[in-house]
Amino acid sequence: MTSQINPPPRLLMGPGPVDADPRVLRAMAAPLVGQFDPFMTDTMTETMGLWREVWRTVNEQTFLVDGTSRAGIEAALVSLLEPGDDVVVPSFGRFGHLLAEISERAGAHVHRVEAEWGSVVDPDRIAEVARRVRPRAIAVVHGDTSTTMAQPLDALGEIARETGALLYVDATATLGGNVFETDAWGIDAATAGLQKCLGGPSGSAPITLSERAAARIRSRRHVEAGIRSADDGDAPGMRIRSNYLDLAQIMDYWGPRRLNHHTEATSMLYAARECARLIGAEGVGARAARHARHGAAMVAGVRGLGLETFGDDRYRMNNVVAVHIPERLRTEPGAGDAVRAALLEDFGIEIGTSFGPLHGQVWRIGVMGTGARRDAVLATLAGLEHVLRRAGIGVPAGGGVDAALESYGGHADGGGAEPVLQGAGPAEPEGDV
Amino acid sequence: MTSQINPPPRLLMGPGPVDADPRVLRAMAAPLVGQFDPFMTDTMTETMGLWREVWRTVNEQTFLVDGTSRAGIEAALVSLLEPGDDVVVPSFGRFGHLLAEISERAGAHVHRVEAEWGSVVDPDRIAEVARRVRPRAIAVVHGDTSTTMAQPLDALGEIARETGALLYVDATATLGGNVFETDAWGIDAATAGLQKCLGGPSGSAPITLSERAAARIRSRRHVEAGIRSADDGDAPGMRIRSNYLDLAQIMDYWGPRRLNHHTEATSMLYAARECARLIGAEGVGARAARHARHGAAMVAGVRGLGLETFGDDRYRMNNVVAVHIPERLRTEPGAGDAVRAALLEDFGIEIGTSFGPLHGQVWRIGVMGTGARRDAVLATLAGLEHVLRRAGIGVPAGGGVDAALESYGGHADGGGAEPVLQGAGPAEPEGDV
Repeated sequence: MTSQINPPPRLLMGPGPVDADPRVLRAMAAPLVGQFDPFMTDTMTETMGLWREVWRTVNEQTFLVDGTSRAGIEAALVSLLEPGDDVVVPSFGRFGHLLAEISERAGAHVHRVEAEWGSVVDPDRIAEVARRVRPRAIAVVHGDTSTTMAQPLDALGEIARETGALLYVDATATLGGNVFETDAWGIDAATAGLQKCLGGPSGSAPITLSERAAARIRSRRHVEAGIRSADDGDAPGMRIRSNYLDLAQIMDYWGPRRLNHHTEATSMLYAARECARLIGAEGVGARAARHARHGAAMVAGVRGLGLETFGDDRYRMNNVVAVHIPERLRTEPGAGDAVRAALLEDFGIEIGTSFGPLHGQVWRIGVMGTGARRDAVLATLAGLEHVLRRAGIGVPAGGGVDAALESYGGHADGGGAEPVLQGAGPAEPEGDV
Repeated sequence: MTSQINPPPRLLMGPGPVDADPRVLRAMAAPLVGQFDPFMTDTMTETMGLWREVWRTVNEQTFLVDGTSRAGIEAALVSLLEPGDDVVVPSFGRFGHLLAEISERAGAHVHRVEAEWGSVVDPDRIAEVARRVRPRAIAVVHGDTSTTMAQPLDALGEIARETGALLYVDATATLGGNVFETDAWGIDAATAGLQKCLGGPSGSAPITLSERAAARIRSRRHVEAGIRSADDGDAPGMRIRSNYLDLAQIMDYWGPRRLNHHTEATSMLYAARECARLIGAEGVGARAARHARHGAAMVAGVRGLGLETFGDDRYRMNNVVAVHIPERLRTEPGAGDAVRAALLEDFGIEIGTSFGPLHGQVWRIGVMGTGARRDAVLATLAGLEHVLRRAGIGVPAGGGVDAALESYGGHADGGGAEPVLQGAGPAEPEGDV
């Protein structure tokens, strides 16, 4: 008969998913409770509070969508946008295309503001289009892993308010590893997934909604037949096209009314709770700083191997770097993928390929979650050095590791303020609670 | 700081979610691998095969949708139905309303064929409407937990073929605990969730599609911008309204092309794989028989306590029984809920409330997954006896337990052919593999 699941040991240093924190994986093994058990509803409410810290918000409407990061994106867009609405989508990589695609499927008119892959979109161009269109929403990716660039967001909240738009941000690739300020930046809706900097598995999508966004969604509230009561009049707005991703109903489920919708994915709730709990224990700011420090060491390391990085240094996310595949490998069919395969097979280390115009041009190396640590960075650079050399590429012996160590400043703890880690993540400050 | 998750011990005997098999929970603690790691893609392919056994099908398109059972329902309906399509929805409870609601949100014209709660829909009435409408699909719930009734499905495949319709079935509440024959019954699309008879947590939706259904979905295939290649021409059909729940794209992700869509929820994949693996080890038929045996003992037991069951005995699902709340409790506000709360607080046992017209009228008691076992049935009946007595209801001492034991025939193993269980589920036939 088929055996128990028994995955091979891996060090996941691609653009995500990356290794989940073992404590998050263990949290998922906790027993289930009933949907309306007081422990369950208390845990949901507690989880909302833990995620407010991560999002840096006071938004009451801060909860989880039961699905991958893409479910969170679609829930936000299909609930905010109704057919015929205009939406401005700054786009500088694959995931900008995704926001446009999802908005189109929601029936919206999409106004793209594109920038070349490897750069970001000038906020003045976004403002110009928004002033002309006066859209329902501006929808933008924060960090687009396809290009490793992070769009500066601090000017967009003001543009959204000036033009009467709601500001939606896809923070899947950046939250928990880069500075992200929901309230200070005037973001109305933001979503993420657990599988990148947040240290969990894919399958739960944290979301936060400002009161403006929540009001927009409530204006489209239609409680479904079968559970509606006499006082559940339909809101004036058009019914949301999706039932599963209908945030008005999901808000009623997470809110005090506890109106049944889906059956909450309890194990993923436990995982999301544990991710947020560990981030709170480490400190949101300290965690972003840790990602910046180890990400910088990786950038220094790949350059120390003689590889060229892709994209504008000023806008690179902390947690992923793209490197040009050496020309000899780029021109030989399959040679770039063979190097990645050798790294996986001989060293158990995964780095990423890429999409669209960058496919076959760059590899993407991630430094995030538990992978944002010194030994993971150094082991990746050492492995990469060896597989490149065996593929016939001239690489300086120890060039990557030395450059990373120099970036760390030679300190045993990685050169920053972080505590020495016990295991893969931050130590529990209060023992095994 | 906030503590680790530490749920209270519970025995979940409601209509679902119920206790997950501990082996399924442990499978989720396995380490992640990359999305396109050979181990990952092999595991996806292996999981498709394991689920074909559970579904009793040879359908190539048998995979998972990343979300709760409701995500599976919506994925099927939004991918099969385009705006303006007609759909016939037999409805005999809350989840029939849900299929109608989701179909409406997908833009379809819904033709309901309703039956009173507690009964099922006469197939001749379904045939009559389908002949008149010639719908794109007939969409029906198999077992509707809101009423505990299971719609006979064996005649519907022929009706669908005769009228040119696709037959969709929501098997969330029945699969793995009742006879379900995808191919023999001519079902074109069926979906489920793990949290009932299948013994897992909510959050992954198994799905199977016949070649007819898959062809319909492929006729609406539109690969998204950002990953499409030159040969990805748009199919002639209307683009599917959802991106996340677009089965054409999800089929490309699970199929040999491995075209990136969402990031597969790896831990939930491990859970779904383990559910199917354990069902295969027990045997699909043996498992349905186990649910029938323990479900019958619960029905006998509640009657032995003097409670009346709700609904037509001929159509009751194996795995859930509704009992009328004793009249004195029904008429006293909150008294019915207080009995359930006492059972939870004093015995750690959860039974369910109900929805819509049955709210405050019946309790629903589930016997499914690992809960379909002798000690769980007897402990529930014993606890219920005590809380009813303490609420002032006259109940015969030992009446529930005795009647259940009589239903089992007095055999130590529950009276059937099942092996003595080690722990909560079937023993591993080959040791700890």
